[in-house]
Amino acid sequence: MLRRYYFDWAAAAPPRVPDPSYAGGEKSVPFGNPSSPHGEGKKAREALEEARRRCAAVLGVRADQIYFTSGASESNAIVLFSLAIKPRRTARAGEAPGGAELLYSAGEHPSVSENVPSLERLGVKSAVLGLDSGGSAALKALEAALEKNPGLRMAAIIGINNETGSVNDTAALGAALRGGTERARPVHFHCDLVQALGKVPLDLGGSCIDSASFSAHKIGGPRGVGLLYLRRPLLPLVRGGGQEGGLRPGTENTAGALAAAACLEERAPAAAASLREAESRMERLISRLRSRAQGRFVPIPEDRGGADSRFSPWILQARFKGIPGAVLVRALDERGFAISTGSACSSGRVKRPVLEAMGLDEETRLEGVRISQGWSTTAEDIEALVEALSGVAAELRGPS
Amino acid sequence: MLRRYYFDWAAAAPPRVPDPSYAGGEKSVPFGNPSSPHGEGKKAREALEEARRRCAAVLGVRADQIYFTSGASESNAIVLFSLAIKPRRTARAGEAPGGAELLYSAGEHPSVSENVPSLERLGVKSAVLGLDSGGSAALKALEAALEKNPGLRMAAIIGINNETGSVNDTAALGAALRGGTERARPVHFHCDLVQALGKVPLDLGGSCIDSASFSAHKIGGPRGVGLLYLRRPLLPLVRGGGQEGGLRPGTENTAGALAAAACLEERAPAAAASLREAESRMERLISRLRSRAQGRFVPIPEDRGGADSRFSPWILQARFKGIPGAVLVRALDERGFAISTGSACSSGRVKRPVLEAMGLDEETRLEGVRISQGWSTTAEDIEALVEALSGVAAELRGPS
Repeated sequence: MLRRYYFDWAAAAPPRVPDPSYAGGEKSVPFGNPSSPHGEGKKAREALEEARRRCAAVLGVRADQIYFTSGASESNAIVLFSLAIKPRRTARAGEAPGGAELLYSAGEHPSVSENVPSLERLGVKSAVLGLDSGGSAALKALEAALEKNPGLRMAAIIGINNETGSVNDTAALGAALRGGTERARPVHFHCDLVQALGKVPLDLGGSCIDSASFSAHKIGGPRGVGLLYLRRPLLPLVRGGGQEGGLRPGTENTAGALAAAACLEERAPAAAASLREAESRMERLISRLRSRAQGRFVPIPEDRGGADSRFSPWILQARFKGIPGAVLVRALDERGFAISTGSACSSGRVKRPVLEAMGLDEETRLEGVRISQGWSTTAEDIEALVEALSGVAAELRGPS
Repeated sequence: MLRRYYFDWAAAAPPRVPDPSYAGGEKSVPFGNPSSPHGEGKKAREALEEARRRCAAVLGVRADQIYFTSGASESNAIVLFSLAIKPRRTARAGEAPGGAELLYSAGEHPSVSENVPSLERLGVKSAVLGLDSGGSAALKALEAALEKNPGLRMAAIIGINNETGSVNDTAALGAALRGGTERARPVHFHCDLVQALGKVPLDLGGSCIDSASFSAHKIGGPRGVGLLYLRRPLLPLVRGGGQEGGLRPGTENTAGALAAAACLEERAPAAAASLREAESRMERLISRLRSRAQGRFVPIPEDRGGADSRFSPWILQARFKGIPGAVLVRALDERGFAISTGSACSSGRVKRPVLEAMGLDEETRLEGVRISQGWSTTAEDIEALVEALSGVAAELRGPS
């Protein structure tokens, strides 16, 4: 059988360990409903709260600031839709300040951006924050948006973009949103940190971030388990049985929460070390391809360097000139290499809104592919990918 | 160690089998993102669609009518909140018909009823459908509500109540909602079937039900996996990466879906046989307690018989006169028996809205406890429970 090389970690990570303890079958994970008053329920409650404490400790926040959800998409939705239920903020004299209530960057994941029409429908005015040519939200653009929208209540700015790896400077952006003494009320800063978790050191407690979303399966944990960090509780739109402090209804997934905690404990504290390894592999990948492909291999954006602090080294958006992304993905797949076009979420669609927001032309958008590495990626895997990519590209374009 | 007797299956079922195949660690469950275009993604997609076909076959519906969610609470929310986004139905001449758009029974699970204030906030007018003394929604009351609310778009009526076991006649209620040739447009019939799945024979395809919610863990499957049946697609409020036909965003839980399918295949087709066994155990429980407790043991409602087709034999709401439910639960727990007061979801609350809607007084509501049996409950377990309940009740009340 053909050996497989997996370079789509941004879409799904291989499970960290074959860990039957979170299958629900192990006796060590209590099966009771954590909301039940009897022994089985109390044991499950203790296990759930232990998982919460362990996740909180890794993220540098209090346990009561961590909520378990079904995934980052749901975490994002809980925060966004709270805008539809929260009493409208009113300025002095009862007059509502003008402009948008929600600002979202053009680099947001679809689980943020695709909810904007629904939110508008519910009366939540929104504005989009453009990206610079590197795919990041610029501080100046944010300051202009704050100026223009005095009634702003929330800004959703992703930590690391899932398609391009573009890094947003959450410290600077967060400080502007908080606004020191100048702003009467700070703007809630929501940050999708799915592609940052375990990959860059995080100190949520010491940041200006008011809420953040995480997904367990992207770091090798179980599917269907997400985390939501909330500095302060907010009003949820969707309610139910009162679980998770009323913020997220549904019987709690004790086993999933414990498995997520184990993943976080292993990978998040080791983020600094694995980041350096990922950087060196990415540097090698980009420089080797540049020299091999005679100018036909181009990172997106073109000025992205091998070591470039504007981008997460875990994710590379790039193209081979003259080869549509979907064609390159298929040809590599046949040779045992898994890469993707946009995000997995948008792979069925033609549009590439994030690339468009970076000012890239249609040809580039059509040709863009995503290569994402992970914890078990080796230098040899990178070398094999370089060979495969340059070989496939030469074959598809024919001799030049 | 004290032997434990578990009688809270309505809150959480012990896992059906220690099944590591859904832990994500087994090689037999593809880890790829089902939305990814490469081999790993395609394998995951095939596995997910296989799970969908298997669930659909068990429920007697088409595969494209089954959506995987994170649980029944989310399934209910998807259906309910579609009312907030769907274009308002208008009568001829563009005039909106009067009355409520959403009718919900007073016996709904909190994941329905607790969303009513949010829905009202979003402009969805609602009305409640009262219960008869047996805790069921009466056909006459439904007909009156239909008369009073010509603009009704949806009715949410639970199949089997999770606290009382009261059965709703979904065939008769559904026929009234569909309304034959008399109603210009039928009312969407949404049915929470969490406590019916695997416990009574279901034929969704041949029913008048337009949408239904299920939870895998209540029949011994994994936590965090739910099903939503939709006769026809609807417009979801919450969007994202387009998964599950755009209806439920978030990376699909392939392993969870396969585990849910395995549970359904084992337990749903066997529902008729296990229903008969549950009936005979419940009949024994009620009749033995009636004779042992000298009139102090009372089912809720009092006229509930040992074999009573108005109730699901899997769930019993009852009381020992003079003993608060919370006290009885604690005393039994110390002796190794797990029962509960209301539902697990509402165990932290004082109110018992379902019992209140049945016209029961405060004393009864305070004393009500729930006993729910399951697939591994035996006649010996029932006998042990009879002994424990009557013993504890005598001890707590003192000699009479």
